[in-house]
Amino acid sequence: MEWTSVDLDNCPVVRALDVVGSRWTLLVLREMFNGVHRFEDIQQHLGVSTSVLSRRLAEMAEHGLVDRIPYRDEGRRERSEYRPTPIAWELYPVVVGLMQWGDRHLTGPNRPTVQLVQTSTGKPVVAALVTADATTCTPADLTVLTSEPDK
Amino acid sequence: MEWTSVDLDNCPVVRALDVVGSRWTLLVLREMFNGVHRFEDIQQHLGVSTSVLSRRLAEMAEHGLVDRIPYRDEGRRERSEYRPTPIAWELYPVVVGLMQWGDRHLTGPNRPTVQLVQTSTGKPVVAALVTADATTCTPADLTVLTSEPDK
Repeated sequence: MEWTSVDLDNCPVVRALDVVGSRWTLLVLREMFNGVHRFEDIQQHLGVSTSVLSRRLAEMAEHGLVDRIPYRDEGRRERSEYRPTPIAWELYPVVVGLMQWGDRHLTGPNRPTVQLVQTSTGKPVVAALVTADATTCTPADLTVLTSEPDK
Repeated sequence: MEWTSVDLDNCPVVRALDVVGSRWTLLVLREMFNGVHRFEDIQQHLGVSTSVLSRRLAEMAEHGLVDRIPYRDEGRRERSEYRPTPIAWELYPVVVGLMQWGDRHLTGPNRPTVQLVQTSTGKPVVAALVTADATTCTPADLTVLTSEPDK
């Protein structure tokens, strides 16, 4: 069967983009992957309106990408944290691939750099194509290092 | 430096999405990665209008993602082929990651499957996070296998 007989309705890239292709969805994933879980923190960091973020998180929950976990700070009303599901974590290589590509090709002066390392070894980590029997890095063994921009 | 002090203007994911975040850009890359290079063929396979595809290819050329190569079939006027640049090939793991994620989580009955294998070994290939010293697969050593949907 030829590639060109895989039509758009059947294409898994199209289906994936339909679920995660919006800028806000990928950015919310990026926040959660980097340890930002509370609605207020995500909202403040992304500079997104309450209604857009609420709608986006509801859609992501519907697609099985986020779990909503209630928490209550002392003396305050109950609020929500959002955690990536295992299905969402499987998109981590995609987000890291975009990040590293942006870092390599769209950098400018005075940009902070973001580097991912394997926590247990300190080795830099990259998003790449490997054979299925290769040793891959798990999210639990990754650390994000950010550095101040060069002056 | 904390992750939350990397603001959106500085975020390489945001910068990457600004360049390749549109559905059509990623789909045009997907076509080219799979060996579809001629304007007419891309247009027909994606079902996109001439004006949208022309604009998208011009933007992609401007961002250094495609090279335009003229060709002329016998007795016809000169036309263009579009080839991914090395910078574009670096996005291949991102596109494959999306494709494999879509294949795993958004499948339905009667869908053809798309599998990537290392040509030299026949081993399945995955998009993953690995340490920078891991052996990765090059685009030149990859074959895309598509199979008919299960009935």
